[in-house]
Amino acid sequence: LIHAPNPPLRIFEDDLIKWIRRRIPSSEGGALRLGIGHDAALIHSGTRDWVVTCDQFLEGVHFLLDKDPADSVGYKALVRATSDIAAMGARPRFFLLSLSLPSGRAGAWLKEMLAGMARASRIFGLRLAGGDTARSPGATGRAALNLMVLGHAPERGVPGRAGAKPGDRIYVTGILGRAQLGLEMLLRGMAWRRKDRRLLAAHYYPVLPLNFGLWLGRNHIPSAMMDISDGLSTDLARLCKASGVGARIYADQVPAVKVPRSFPQTAALAPLTLALHGGEDYGLLFTVPKRRISRIPRHFGLTPITSIGEVVRGSAVSIVAKDGRVSSLTPGGWDHFAKS
Amino acid sequence: LIHAPNPPLRIFEDDLIKWIRRRIPSSEGGALRLGIGHDAALIHSGTRDWVVTCDQFLEGVHFLLDKDPADSVGYKALVRATSDIAAMGARPRFFLLSLSLPSGRAGAWLKEMLAGMARASRIFGLRLAGGDTARSPGATGRAALNLMVLGHAPERGVPGRAGAKPGDRIYVTGILGRAQLGLEMLLRGMAWRRKDRRLLAAHYYPVLPLNFGLWLGRNHIPSAMMDISDGLSTDLARLCKASGVGARIYADQVPAVKVPRSFPQTAALAPLTLALHGGEDYGLLFTVPKRRISRIPRHFGLTPITSIGEVVRGSAVSIVAKDGRVSSLTPGGWDHFAKS
Repeated sequence: LIHAPNPPLRIFEDDLIKWIRRRIPSSEGGALRLGIGHDAALIHSGTRDWVVTCDQFLEGVHFLLDKDPADSVGYKALVRATSDIAAMGARPRFFLLSLSLPSGRAGAWLKEMLAGMARASRIFGLRLAGGDTARSPGATGRAALNLMVLGHAPERGVPGRAGAKPGDRIYVTGILGRAQLGLEMLLRGMAWRRKDRRLLAAHYYPVLPLNFGLWLGRNHIPSAMMDISDGLSTDLARLCKASGVGARIYADQVPAVKVPRSFPQTAALAPLTLALHGGEDYGLLFTVPKRRISRIPRHFGLTPITSIGEVVRGSAVSIVAKDGRVSSLTPGGWDHFAKS
Repeated sequence: LIHAPNPPLRIFEDDLIKWIRRRIPSSEGGALRLGIGHDAALIHSGTRDWVVTCDQFLEGVHFLLDKDPADSVGYKALVRATSDIAAMGARPRFFLLSLSLPSGRAGAWLKEMLAGMARASRIFGLRLAGGDTARSPGATGRAALNLMVLGHAPERGVPGRAGAKPGDRIYVTGILGRAQLGLEMLLRGMAWRRKDRRLLAAHYYPVLPLNFGLWLGRNHIPSAMMDISDGLSTDLARLCKASGVGARIYADQVPAVKVPRSFPQTAALAPLTLALHGGEDYGLLFTVPKRRISRIPRHFGLTPITSIGEVVRGSAVSIVAKDGRVSSLTPGGWDHFAKS
């Protein structure tokens, strides 16, 4: 229903990761405190733990040459990777850039792309420490970026995805569905008013709740945490799976994007659909034990922090509608026909 | 003259790196002991320093689908990145893999590729700590691997590229030109005998002098060190530039590959040409102050360690022929017309 620049080919990706883990030595232990299956690896190093992550940002997959300005490409490539650092409550420190470019792309496009990346690196306090460059192969070569980010882990340990317990409250940061709505405006070539530009900005230049992530990490508040990069329905399912729990969220508590009245009234552009399944908002999804929920503010700076439901026993992830009806919330889609 | 799977587009790459450094915060200092311009970044962390590097391994650039077996692709991708760790005298510990694959490549090819990578990871003592997966875009998608490797730096510091001083002796490990000759055999579809298989093996499964690199680093012997990935003439020029020195090497001291007599007698297949300009041997190039050269063995295990010349003042890199004639040694080409 919803266009996504990076179709979350879940079966393919999950199988691929299983294949990789089965074949390549990758067990946690020793200095490797957390490995595959978390937003970032956690590596113990003397007095200091590091979180390390890498993310691809590929032309034709994560961005479109004719829709996304070059500076947004550089900005978002670094946002995407740094978001995994924020998701561990860690402080971004250094990054490495692997870049492959078609021959003809080394002029104005590159300059703007690097300007966007430089802006993101300053906002996040990141310094470039190295990388690799190559020409893209083939006549129709595409640009490919690969960003590796290293950050300082919080001293009291990182939350990870696996610590959610039944009874914990579920929270999200920010407004959900804004980046997806901005993308829809572009892909559908929709007419929009000047004041709707902020929706495009949410797609082009998402803001990371980095300081809130640091605050949560420093104060050891969440029982589990991750970033929302592929949409709440997909990422909540991942958190629940990693923790061995289920979840129940409330439709009227989800902080959904406001869709301008002038926009088409289609199911794909319904606020709740966008909020549940839209990707790339790069907010945080985290769970908090009851004894610590009094410490969660309603806002952190300008960012709303919203309780949307609770962790439950079992493995079912469900959503309670305004009228009290309970449906199963499945990744990327809202299954009205599931048993309630 | 010589085919290379990864044509070293030097001007493009050097300009690109300059552009990047000018635009993105990347200064060394604080925890970032060494940044862009070395084989790997050096990051200080409490009681322990880490070296970090990333390298791309792209279909159509670094490997050819119809020439390179899938397990060699996985093996070499990890060799290429880990070689930068060896070049710092460091011990490989963890790696991250970013992988983008065309839809049709998720079967037997992937299985074999991962088997090759698993073999390399066991040989090097590396564990996979994370990564990212995506489908390659487009109808003619190509596989792209990006390997990020983290290693423990030697306690007494890493050599880096910038410490060579006039009077230092220049050394290389292994036999040079073997991987290039193996590649030529493939690209030219040459007939070869059973005993020439080791040349193909040198191309498919290069061996890293990891333990020798560790020994050099632990004993703080080299004044400068790097790996030879793009050929001696190119990499020696880089080391000299970084150190602000020149070099003089002796043609009859260069440990060149033996070319079987049955092979075509062309200039491109001359042993010295292959040894000076052929890439992907992944040996070490290092310089040693006179007072420490007595510590350098002639062999380390089965690997020959060979003195090939000395560091000189100035910036010229020259080669002395058997008959005493001095020529300028230019990256990727041997300029007989330069002033001697």
